[in-house]
Amino acid sequence: MFYHVRELINPIVADEPDPSAANALQEGLGGQFGEMRTMMQYLFQSFNFRGNAAPYRDLIQSVGIEEISHVELITKTISQLLDGSPRYQGDKFATPGAGGEAPMDMAKEQMNPHHFIVGAQAALPVDAAGNPWQGSYVHAHGNLVLDLLDNLVLEATGRLQKCRIYQMSSNKTLRSTVAFLIARDSAHQMAFAKALETLGVNWGKILPIPAFEASDYPEVQALIDAGINRQQYHFNLESSQLATIFQGASPANDGTELEALAEPEQSYPDPGAPERPEEFSPGLDPELQALVDALTDYKETTAKKAAKKNGKKTR
Amino acid sequence: MFYHVRELINPIVADEPDPSAANALQEGLGGQFGEMRTMMQYLFQSFNFRGNAAPYRDLIQSVGIEEISHVELITKTISQLLDGSPRYQGDKFATPGAGGEAPMDMAKEQMNPHHFIVGAQAALPVDAAGNPWQGSYVHAHGNLVLDLLDNLVLEATGRLQKCRIYQMSSNKTLRSTVAFLIARDSAHQMAFAKALETLGVNWGKILPIPAFEASDYPEVQALIDAGINRQQYHFNLESSQLATIFQGASPANDGTELEALAEPEQSYPDPGAPERPEEFSPGLDPELQALVDALTDYKETTAKKAAKKNGKKTR
Amino acid sequence: MFYHVRELINPIVADEPDPSAANALQEGLGGQFGEMRTMMQYLFQSFNFRGNAAPYRDLIQSVGIEEISHVELITKTISQLLDGSPRYQGDKFATPGAGGEAPMDMAKEQMNPHHFIVGAQAALPVDAAGNPWQGSYVHAHGNLVLDLLDNLVLEATGRLQKCRIYQMSSNKTLRSTVAFLIARDSAHQMAFAKALETLGVNWGKILPIPAFEASDYPEVQALIDAGINRQQYHFNLESSQLATIFQGASPANDGTELEALAEPEQSYPDPGAPERPEEFSPGLDPELQALVDALTDYKETTAKKAAKKNGKKTR
Amino acid sequence: MFYHVRELINPIVADEPDPSAANALQEGLGGQFGEMRTMMQYLFQSFNFRGNAAPYRDLIQSVGIEEISHVELITKTISQLLDGSPRYQGDKFATPGAGGEAPMDMAKEQMNPHHFIVGAQAALPVDAAGNPWQGSYVHAHGNLVLDLLDNLVLEATGRLQKCRIYQMSSNKTLRSTVAFLIARDSAHQMAFAKALETLGVNWGKILPIPAFEASDYPEVQALIDAGINRQQYHFNLESSQLATIFQGASPANDGTELEALAEPEQSYPDPGAPERPEEFSPGLDPELQALVDALTDYKETTAKKAAKKNGKKTR
Amino acid sequence: MFYHVRELINPIVADEPDPSAANALQEGLGGQFGEMRTMMQYLFQSFNFRGNAAPYRDLIQSVGIEEISHVELITKTISQLLDGSPRYQGDKFATPGAGGEAPMDMAKEQMNPHHFIVGAQAALPVDAAGNPWQGSYVHAHGNLVLDLLDNLVLEATGRLQKCRIYQMSSNKTLRSTVAFLIARDSAHQMAFAKALETLGVNWGKILPIPAFEASDYPEVQALIDAGINRQQYHFNLESSQLATIFQGASPANDGTELEALAEPEQSYPDPGAPERPEEFSPGLDPELQALVDALTDYKETTAKKAAKKNGKKTR
Amino acid sequence: MFYHVRELINPIVADEPDPSAANALQEGLGGQFGEMRTMMQYLFQSFNFRGNAAPYRDLIQSVGIEEISHVELITKTISQLLDGSPRYQGDKFATPGAGGEAPMDMAKEQMNPHHFIVGAQAALPVDAAGNPWQGSYVHAHGNLVLDLLDNLVLEATGRLQKCRIYQMSSNKTLRSTVAFLIARDSAHQMAFAKALETLGVNWGKILPIPAFEASDYPEVQALIDAGINRQQYHFNLESSQLATIFQGASPANDGTELEALAEPEQSYPDPGAPERPEEFSPGLDPELQALVDALTDYKETTAKKAAKKNGKKTR
Repeated sequence: MFYHVRELINPIVADEPDPSAANALQEGLGGQFGEMRTMMQYLFQSFNFRGNAAPYRDLIQSVGIEEISHVELITKTISQLLDGSPRYQGDKFATPGAGGEAPMDMAKEQMNPHHFIVGAQAALPVDAAGNPWQGSYVHAHGNLVLDLLDNLVLEATGRLQKCRIYQMSSNKTLRSTVAFLIARDSAHQMAFAKALETLGVNWGKILPIPAFEASDYPEVQALIDAGINRQQYHFNLESSQLATIFQGASPANDGTELEALAEPEQSYPDPGAPERPEEFSPGLDPELQALVDALTDYKETTAKKAAKKNGKKTR
Repeated sequence: MFYHVRELINPIVADEPDPSAANALQEGLGGQFGEMRTMMQYLFQSFNFRGNAAPYRDLIQSVGIEEISHVELITKTISQLLDGSPRYQGDKFATPGAGGEAPMDMAKEQMNPHHFIVGAQAALPVDAAGNPWQGSYVHAHGNLVLDLLDNLVLEATGRLQKCRIYQMSSNKTLRSTVAFLIARDSAHQMAFAKALETLGVNWGKILPIPAFEASDYPEVQALIDAGINRQQYHFNLESSQLATIFQGASPANDGTELEALAEPEQSYPDPGAPERPEEFSPGLDPELQALVDALTDYKETTAKKAAKKNGKKTR
Repeated sequence: MFYHVRELINPIVADEPDPSAANALQEGLGGQFGEMRTMMQYLFQSFNFRGNAAPYRDLIQSVGIEEISHVELITKTISQLLDGSPRYQGDKFATPGAGGEAPMDMAKEQMNPHHFIVGAQAALPVDAAGNPWQGSYVHAHGNLVLDLLDNLVLEATGRLQKCRIYQMSSNKTLRSTVAFLIARDSAHQMAFAKALETLGVNWGKILPIPAFEASDYPEVQALIDAGINRQQYHFNLESSQLATIFQGASPANDGTELEALAEPEQSYPDPGAPERPEEFSPGLDPELQALVDALTDYKETTAKKAAKKNGKKTR
Repeated sequence: MFYHVRELINPIVADEPDPSAANALQEGLGGQFGEMRTMMQYLFQSFNFRGNAAPYRDLIQSVGIEEISHVELITKTISQLLDGSPRYQGDKFATPGAGGEAPMDMAKEQMNPHHFIVGAQAALPVDAAGNPWQGSYVHAHGNLVLDLLDNLVLEATGRLQKCRIYQMSSNKTLRSTVAFLIARDSAHQMAFAKALETLGVNWGKILPIPAFEASDYPEVQALIDAGINRQQYHFNLESSQLATIFQGASPANDGTELEALAEPEQSYPDPGAPERPEEFSPGLDPELQALVDALTDYKETTAKKAAKKNGKKTR
Repeated sequence: MFYHVRELINPIVADEPDPSAANALQEGLGGQFGEMRTMMQYLFQSFNFRGNAAPYRDLIQSVGIEEISHVELITKTISQLLDGSPRYQGDKFATPGAGGEAPMDMAKEQMNPHHFIVGAQAALPVDAAGNPWQGSYVHAHGNLVLDLLDNLVLEATGRLQKCRIYQMSSNKTLRSTVAFLIARDSAHQMAFAKALETLGVNWGKILPIPAFEASDYPEVQALIDAGINRQQYHFNLESSQLATIFQGASPANDGTELEALAEPEQSYPDPGAPERPEEFSPGLDPELQALVDALTDYKETTAKKAAKKNGKKTR
Repeated sequence: MFYHVRELINPIVADEPDPSAANALQEGLGGQFGEMRTMMQYLFQSFNFRGNAAPYRDLIQSVGIEEISHVELITKTISQLLDGSPRYQGDKFATPGAGGEAPMDMAKEQMNPHHFIVGAQAALPVDAAGNPWQGSYVHAHGNLVLDLLDNLVLEATGRLQKCRIYQMSSNKTLRSTVAFLIARDSAHQMAFAKALETLGVNWGKILPIPAFEASDYPEVQALIDAGINRQQYHFNLESSQLATIFQGASPANDGTELEALAEPEQSYPDPGAPERPEEFSPGLDPELQALVDALTDYKETTAKKAAKKNGKKTR
C-alpha cells in the first residue's frame, strides 16, 4: 500500500522556459530507459518476487518506490521547461487569441506539438521522438540473477542517456534535475551490482557506466560530495532488509562506502504551476471559478469537520 | 514523494489456479481502462495541475495514489491465479523437465503463453488480448472540467469491464479482488461526479455506471454494507483537502453519504509466492542459494547496525 | 459529402453463433488487408488525387465508398456470430450473474476475450490475432500507376485471406458474407487491373488472385452467376466517370464483360441486435428505460413536427 | 449502405501554403481525438447498437456519417496547406531536380518529412507527432449511457484541441476549416449532452467545453450567427428519428434552441489539386499521359452509353 | 557484404505437426528476446562501431552473422511444425473446400489464426502472443561496455525463454532446434562475458543463466559433449580477430576452454516444404504450372549458358 | 547459412555531416518500404517457399541476401551523415561538456533527438518520422503470384521514396548511396516483373516506377551506364537458378538485356567511424583502454595460434 507527501525529492531550479530541452528530457520520463520504466519494472519484479530471499526483494522494491518520486520530479521539471514557452502573458479570463491573434504560433514548430495541443504545456508519457511509453519495456523475467543484471543495464543506459541530455542545454532547470538523476542512477547501479557481488561477481573497474570525470559536471560533483550517489533509501513506513545488501564497500571498487537510509535527508516544496488561458487550463470561466472559490473558501471549516468525523489519524 | 508498507489494500482469497481467469483479469491491470492507466492518468493530471483549485487537485491525486495499491493488488491476484497452473509440484533443485519430460506442456495452449515464457507464472503489463499497455492511454488534457469528465468515463468503463469479468469465473481468488475493485470504482465515480456537481451538474439517476442490483453479487454487497463504495482515502502523510469536495450526499442521488478518510481502516498481509523450479524462478542453484542464505541469516545483525548507523527514524 | 440508408449491401444469413469464426472474420474487418484498410486507402487516395485524370479518381473513389458499406456488413456479421455465443438466455432486467452464478465463463477461453470484456459480444476494429488496426496500413503514394498496382495487391490479398477463412467454418452466417466479399474483391481486382490495362499492361491469365474453381464454393458461384463479380457501382448521387474505364472485356481475359452501375440492384434489411443483459447492453435499468420509452413513444409526433419545422426535404 | 456527392461540407479558403500548420492540423485528422476516431467510433457504436432505442441509435449514427465528410474536408485542407510548400514551380514533364538541383531540400526539415517522402505533399492518417492512427482509439462499450458520456468527452477534447490549433497560425486555410470544426464539435457536444439530458442529467453551465468567448474568434462567431453550432443533420436518404432527441432547449442552458435537419443547407466545390512533378504525382510520363488523355476524351461518349446500358437511375 | 549457402546450421528433425508448439517457438523468432532481435542488435552494433577496438567489433559481428542463420533455422522449424497441422491431405489442383467442405476448420481455434490466414502454415515475424516484432527491441547504445552487458542480458533471456519452451512439448522437431539454440545461447553468453572479462570483470559462478543440469536435457547434453556450447564461429570469408578474445578459460569458470572457428564443422540439408492447396500455396493453377514447368525444365541449359556468359566464378 | 566480408557493396562518398539528410534517409532503412523490410520480406518468402519452382525461390532469395548488404550500406551512410554533426572536435579522454559547457546543444533541435540520445550519432531501426520498424511490414503471403506482385509494389515504392529523398539534399554522401539504391531498386523491379512475365504478364511501358529521365540524375546515369540497373547477383557460394528467369529482354520493354551474376564486380572498403567522447562512445576510460590496447597488440600472435589450433580453413 502506498502513501504520499506533497514534496519533491529534489528542488526544481528556476530558469527560462526551453521547450526543446523539455522535449529531450521526455526521454528520461517516457523513454525506453526512462523513469516510467524503472518504476514499473522494479514494482513488477518486487510484486512478482518468488522465494525467500527477502533482502533482494526489498532492495529491488526500494528502488521502485523511489522511481515514483522520480516520475513526479521529472514530470514537473518538463512542465516547468514548457511553461509559457516562449513567454506568453495571458490575463486570466482574457480570451486566448483575442481578436484573432495567434499567441501560440510558436507551438506548431516546437519539437513535439503535442506538448501544446494534447497537454497544456506539460509533460506527456512519451519519449523524445514522440513515441508513447509501452508496457513491453518492463522486464520482469522471474529469475533473480537475470533480473538484477537487466536492472544494472537499465540503470547504466538511463545514466548514459542523461549524461548526453545534460550536454544538450545549459538551462539550469534541466541541469539540476538531470544531475540529480545521474547521481541517483549511480546509486541504483551500485544497488544492483552489489546484489550481484553477494552472488560472487567482481566488477573490476567498469562501474559506474558511463565512465566520466564528475568534477567537470559541477552539479553532479556537488551531489557526490553530499554522498547522494552512494546512498539508498527504502521508503518503507515499517521496515526493510535493504541494508543487508546495500552496505560496505562500493562495487565500483573506488574506495567509497554504501549507506542505506530510510528516506532522503531533505525534501523540497512543489513550485506549483500558474494558469495558462491560452491552453484553456484549468479553463474555468468566471461563473465556474466563483463556484470553485466558494468551495475553496469553505475548505478550512470542512477540513476540520472531516478530520473530526473521520476520528482517525493519518499514519 | 512516495512511501510504502508491505501490506495489501484488500485480502487475496485462496482458491485453485485458473490461468484463463488470470488472463481475463489482465484487462483490469494492463488494459486500456485498467489500473495502470488510472494510476498514471491521475498522477499525471495531479503533477501537471494548473491554478489554485487545490481541493480538486487533492481529490484527483488521492485516487491516483490509491491506484498504485490497486496495481499491487491486481498484479498479485493474477500471479496467484497463474501460480502452478495447472498444478506442477517441482522439488527445489530438481531440474525442470528432468529426464526429458515436459512438465509445462499445458503452457503452450493457455490464453497468453507469455505468462509462462516471458513471466514466471506471473502478471504482465498487458491486456487480456496480449497487447502491451501504452502511454497514449493516459489522458491529461489540462482542462479541469474535461479531466473530471474523462475520469468519470474511465471509472465507469473500468467498472463495466470488471462486472463482465466477474461473471467469467466463480473462482474466489478472482471474485474477491474483482468485487473490491468494483466497489472502489463506484467510489471513484462518486469522487469525480461530486467534483462536477460542485460545478453545477446534477447527475439524476444515471450513476453509478453500469446499473445493477448489487445484492446479486454477494461479494460486492458485503463491501457496500461496509461502506467501501462511498469512502475515499487521501493517503497523504501530512494533509489533504479531499474532504472539501468528497462529503455530503452522494451524486448517485441514492440517499447515501460520502465519507473522506486518511486511509482504509484495515490492511492485509502479502501472501508471498513460492519458488517455481520449472520456470527457473528465482533460479538460484545450491551454490548461489548458499550465498543468499548466508546473507539472509546475517540480516538481523546488519539491520540493527544499519538502523543505528542511519541515526534516523522512518517517518 | 456522404449519405446513408439503413440497409445492407448483402443479406446476413441466420445460423448458430460461432465465436471463433467471428474472430477469424475480424481479419477481414480490422486486419492489414481488411475492409477498414481498403475503405481508408481508397478514400485517402481519392481525396489526395492530383491532376486531371478524373476517370481514374472516380474509379478509386467508387470502390472506397463501397468499402464503407462492407465495413458495415462485416461488422454486423461478426456481431451476429458473437451474439449470445454460446447461448445465454438472460431475461431483461434480470441481473447478470444473479446469485453469484457465472453465465459468461465460456468467455474467458474464447479466441479474443475482448469480444466479451471490451465489446458487448460485438465486432472490434482489430485483426484475428487481436492487434488494433493501424493508420500505417493505408498506402496513398500519390503516384497513379503505383497506387493502382498497390490496390490490386490489396484486393488480391483480401480475397486470398477470405478464401482461407471460408474454409475455416461451414457456418452460414460466416460463409454468406465471406462469399459476397470474395466476389466483390474479384470485381475490385478487375477495376484496378482494367485501369492498368488502359495504361498498357496485359495481365495474361494471372487474374483473379488466387486462382480457384468457383463451382466448388456454391455461395460464390451463385454470385458469379448473378454477375456480382464483374459489376462496379459508383454510389455517387450525381455522376461519375467510372464507366469510362470500367467497361468492355474483363482484364482476367476470361471472356466476360465488365458492367458499371450506379448502385447494387438490391439492398437488404438490417437485422438489428437484441439486448444482452449479461453485458449490461444497452444497460438501461427500469427507471432509465421508462424515460427512453416515453421518448420513443413521443417520436412520431416529434418526427412530424421536426419535418415540418425543417421545411426541407431529404435529398 | 453509403453514398457520396463530390462536394465539401464547408469551403476551403485559399491562402499561402504552411506545412507546419498542416502538421498541427493532422492532430484533428489522425489524432487520438481527431475526425478519423469520431467517424469510426460512432459508426461502430451504431452498427453494434443493441435494443430498441432507435432515436439514440439514429442520433449517434447521424454524427458518424457527418464525420466521414469531416475526414474529407480536413484531409483536403491539410493537403492544400502542404501543396507546393514552400512554393516550387515545376513544369509538367520537367524532371524534378533536373541537373542535380535539390528543389525539395526544404522538405527534410519540415515537421513531418513523411508529408514529402511517403505522401506527395498530402495528408496522412497520423497525428501531429507522426504516430499512426490506431483502432484502439475507438470506444464502443455497448452500454448506452457510457457510450454517450464517452462521446461527449471525445467531442469536448476534439474541440479543446482545435481551439489550441486555431491559435497556432493565422493562416486562413487553416482557420476557416478549424473554425467550422469547432462549431460542429459544439453541435455534437449538444447532441450527446441532450441525449443524456433525456435520461435525467442537468448539465448546468459547464457546456460547451472548453468555455470561451466566441466573439474573439471571428470565423467561429460567423458560424454561430448562422446557427451552425446548434444544428444536427441526419444525412439519411430515407428517414431518421434524430429529431426526437435533438430538439428543444440546448443542454448548454444558454437560451438557444436545437434544430434537426436532413443535411446542411449548402455544399461547396472541391478545389482539386494540381500535379506535382517533384513528387512524381500523378507521375504519368508523356506516353502514359497520352493514353489517359485518349481515355478522358472518350469519356463523354462512354458515359452516355454506360448510362443507357445501366438502364437505372442514380438514387 | 553477405553471402549464403542453401544449407542449415542444424538439422530439422522430423516429427508430427504441433501448431501450438509452433506458436510457442515464435517467441524465439519474433519475440523481444528472439533471434530477429539478436541478429539486428549485433549487426547494428557492429555497423555503428566506433574506435579501434577491432577484436570487440569482430566478436559482436560474428555472433550477428550467425543469428541470420538462426532466423533461417527457426523459421523453417516453425513452418514444419505448422505444415499440414493437423493433417490435411489435399490433392494438387483439387480445390480447397471442394463441395463446400471446411477442411481448415481446425485453423480458427489455433493459438494464432494468422498462421493460417496471413501465412500459409508458415512462420511469421511475431511473438508467441501475436505481437509484431519492433525495431525498438534493438539496443545499440554506442558504448562498448554497456553494449556488451546488454548483449549478455539478451543472450541470458533468450536462453531462459528457450529452456521454458523446451518443457512445453516433447515434440522432436521443436526440441532439437530449441536444444541447439540453448547451446548456442550459452556460447554467446560466453562470448560477451569473456569480452567483459578482458575489461576486468570476474563472473564467479553465475554463468550461464539460467543454471540447470544439462544432463536432464538429453538433446542439450549431446551438443555440450560435442563442444557446441563453447565454440564461436566468425563466418567471415576473409579474416576475423574474434579469436583474440574468444579463447582460453571459459568465463563460466567451469574448467572448460573456449574455441574460435571459422564456421561450424557441418551443415545440413534444407528439407523444403510441400504444396498446400488449401492455402493456395504456391497457388499455381494447371495453366500457370505448365509455364513454370517449362521454365524449370529449361533451367539446366540456361544455367550453363548463364555461367558461361557471366564469365565469373562464385567466390 | 550466411557469410560475410567486411567490404561494402557501394562506396560511401565523403562530404559534410547533414543530420536532417540523415533523418530523411532513415526512411530508406527503417521505413515501411525501406531496406529492413525488403531484406526480411524476401528472406521470409524464400524460407517459407512451398513447392518445386526453385528458380522463383532462388530469384526471391538472391534479392533478399543483397538487401542485408543494403542495410549495411545505408546504416553506415546515415551514421556518417550524423557523425560529428555539426562538427564537434572532442579530444579523446577529454570530458564531454567539460566545465559545464554544452557541446551537444545542437542535438536537442535536430529532426530526431534519438540519434544523439539513444544512438551515438548513428543510424537507428526507425523511419524518418521516428517510428520503429515493425514486423507487420513483412508480407509473405505464401502465394507465388501474389508475393511477386507485392514485391514489385515494394520495390516501386522504395524507388519512388528514394527519388524524393534524392531531391532533398545535394549532399554527396547522401546522393551517392541513394543513387545506388535507386539503380538497384530498378534491377529488383525487373527481377519480379520478369518472373511475372514468365507467367504471362506483359508490362507495356509502365516500368520502372516512377518514370523519370535518368540523365537528369547524374549519379544514377553513371550507374545505368555501368549496367547496374539491369544486373542481378545471387550471392550464393554454391549455385543458384536465378539466371533461369533473370535473362533476356528487360520487362521494361526498353531494349535492354538482363544479366545474372554471382556477385557485384567490385566491393569497397568500410570507412570505419572515429570515437565520439561527447557520446561516451566507445566510452573506454584510460584504464579500460589500456586493457583493450594490450589485447589488440596481442592479437597477431593469438590470431596465428587460433588459426593453427582450428586446423580449418575459412570457406
